[in-house]
Amino acid sequence: MLKRIAILGSTGSIGKQAIEVVENNPELFKIEVLTANSNAELLIEQAKKIKPKYVVIADERHYKNVKNSLAGIDITVLSGNEQVAWITTVAEIDFVIIALVGYSGLLPTIKALEANKQVALANKEALVVAGDIITELAHKKNIQLLPIDSEHSAIFQCLTGENIKNIEKIYLTASGGPFRGYSKEQLKKVTKNEALNHPNWTMGAKITIDSATMMNKGLEMIEAKWLFDLKPDQIDVVVHSQSIIHSIVQFCDGSMKAQMGLPDMKLPIQFAMSYPDRIFSDFERFDFKKYPVFNFEQPDFEVFKCLKLALLALQKGGNIPCILNAANEIAVDLFLREKINFLQISEIIEKTIDKFQYRQNLTLEEYIETDTLARKYAKM
Amino acid sequence: MLKRIAILGSTGSIGKQAIEVVENNPELFKIEVLTANSNAELLIEQAKKIKPKYVVIADERHYKNVKNSLAGIDITVLSGNEQVAWITTVAEIDFVIIALVGYSGLLPTIKALEANKQVALANKEALVVAGDIITELAHKKNIQLLPIDSEHSAIFQCLTGENIKNIEKIYLTASGGPFRGYSKEQLKKVTKNEALNHPNWTMGAKITIDSATMMNKGLEMIEAKWLFDLKPDQIDVVVHSQSIIHSIVQFCDGSMKAQMGLPDMKLPIQFAMSYPDRIFSDFERFDFKKYPVFNFEQPDFEVFKCLKLALLALQKGGNIPCILNAANEIAVDLFLREKINFLQISEIIEKTIDKFQYRQNLTLEEYIETDTLARKYAKM
Repeated sequence: MLKRIAILGSTGSIGKQAIEVVENNPELFKIEVLTANSNAELLIEQAKKIKPKYVVIADERHYKNVKNSLAGIDITVLSGNEQVAWITTVAEIDFVIIALVGYSGLLPTIKALEANKQVALANKEALVVAGDIITELAHKKNIQLLPIDSEHSAIFQCLTGENIKNIEKIYLTASGGPFRGYSKEQLKKVTKNEALNHPNWTMGAKITIDSATMMNKGLEMIEAKWLFDLKPDQIDVVVHSQSIIHSIVQFCDGSMKAQMGLPDMKLPIQFAMSYPDRIFSDFERFDFKKYPVFNFEQPDFEVFKCLKLALLALQKGGNIPCILNAANEIAVDLFLREKINFLQISEIIEKTIDKFQYRQNLTLEEYIETDTLARKYAKM
Repeated sequence: MLKRIAILGSTGSIGKQAIEVVENNPELFKIEVLTANSNAELLIEQAKKIKPKYVVIADERHYKNVKNSLAGIDITVLSGNEQVAWITTVAEIDFVIIALVGYSGLLPTIKALEANKQVALANKEALVVAGDIITELAHKKNIQLLPIDSEHSAIFQCLTGENIKNIEKIYLTASGGPFRGYSKEQLKKVTKNEALNHPNWTMGAKITIDSATMMNKGLEMIEAKWLFDLKPDQIDVVVHSQSIIHSIVQFCDGSMKAQMGLPDMKLPIQFAMSYPDRIFSDFERFDFKKYPVFNFEQPDFEVFKCLKLALLALQKGGNIPCILNAANEIAVDLFLREKINFLQISEIIEKTIDKFQYRQNLTLEEYIETDTLARKYAKM
């Protein structure tokens, strides 16, 4: 049966690769919805080629351009963030790929679940901010959240056919980013371009900076907690600079399973789409001759302060991960606009967390409010 | 429900560890049959402690000793190889662990399957000799053969919840044994004690010598072909001297899964026994701090001639693996009795294979006859 797909964030790195997977498997997938934030040009190009039923451009300034460019083709063109969330509920789709950047993934994820759609999550921030609400909703709807993040896809693949209750712990592997082994002194001087130059993975700007600060691994720890129903002390991080082992599950009998492969996001994207089956791909295969050594080391929680802050947020829960995420999004944006230096990213996050009182059991509205307030404070 | 267990080969390395697993989980397992080849003393000790329904000593010279030592306890004592095979058919058991050395595992495996017992195979030679007959019988009886060999347990664990048709290839990992990196010149001079000193695994003498010659990995390739229904070119070997990754499956989408852990046979033994569930163990856990580096290299098929001969046997099939195995058992025995040097092991196997005509589709009786003739020739 054809899976009818909505790709939220089709002009980003994950979105473009998801389109490739569909193009390689037209007998399995059909794209009916494309959305983009502001890259109108690419969205128009994709829409002309794919001819989905709906196209949404979040940034309303581009609406006219998109609408006019697609005139004469049978495509409904919409715009605005609310429509990005609403479009996940339309009857023409079964499967929603959330490939949005940051916090913007939250509401579409909830809408899609409420509308009983299968959800594949490339966006970790939605779970970081409101993992309790999302997982409870998915559970209520009996929907399996499909992770696209490579580490969580790895864990998910290792859990195939296993009882989740038999998990003893997991290891999320980290490449260590471009600044692995750096001292604090060295980190102070790194430039935006150095931070954007990831050694193993080609990704968007936000996640690439998060990898450089190791906040990305911190967010992944929180994401893993929700996806796999783990306690904080069941989640460990090991630095593996080759990025071949994508993560590891250790079971109650001491046995461990690792998922491996070349660092290529197309694989976890395709796996989420083909799950529970696998489909053939011609992606380049891993070759031990090219990787004769795997290295493992402990992450440095003191130098990579963001990782430490995320670990604390994981342990405390409540409103802290939401504040951490909001402050991080602001700080990364400031760093990308060269308003602050690299070490100031963690400083902004820390002072923002310190500003707020610790609270638990928030409603969705309270999370949204917390996010707004934390962003405001982080900008100051 | 209590699994009622027969341990064939209870005084060997695997047998003793299987008993430990039962002792740690008395609510899950009960041993009703113990058999040994000639270690009467240990068999008597085990029987007194465990009080199984049956005890079989294969070597009839020890029968009286065992019988008299267990007088007054409600245990039926039998002897002879035929009784070792027959005992797998008794009504008091559901689950047979074949932990016999070499060719002697063949007939008990077949008898157990014919009697509809669940079979866990620590013995690879049965599949090497007559894999077609065993797997066809298991298929007919709808019995899943449970591998105990650590590499095959690894593959089997990686295949949990996966469709076997999606296997693209497997990598069997090899420690490389005590002589990894040796030249032919160096191999010529190695002693029995050096060959018996395996760097990672504590095992019986036969398999330890097979590891030193790398014949063990060759036999495992043939074993894997039958267990996982693979073509010869889907089976690869990679040398991984740390023996932490126990083997790897590569799927049709390029994704790979590896099973990992400390080199300890208790884990695959317990997994076979607890399958399809896992049960808690207090086995020592793997720690990346103690293993910061994994190395991988290609095996040397020229220096380790036994591996090359096994590869040829894998590719040709028919009666060749049976001849290879018979000649190897004789040659290893001669080496252990210091009648030949290390390199002569492969010479004996090669000349034995050359002596016989290639045949396919043998009956069990023809395999047995081939084994007998090959042993006779190899001894000359």
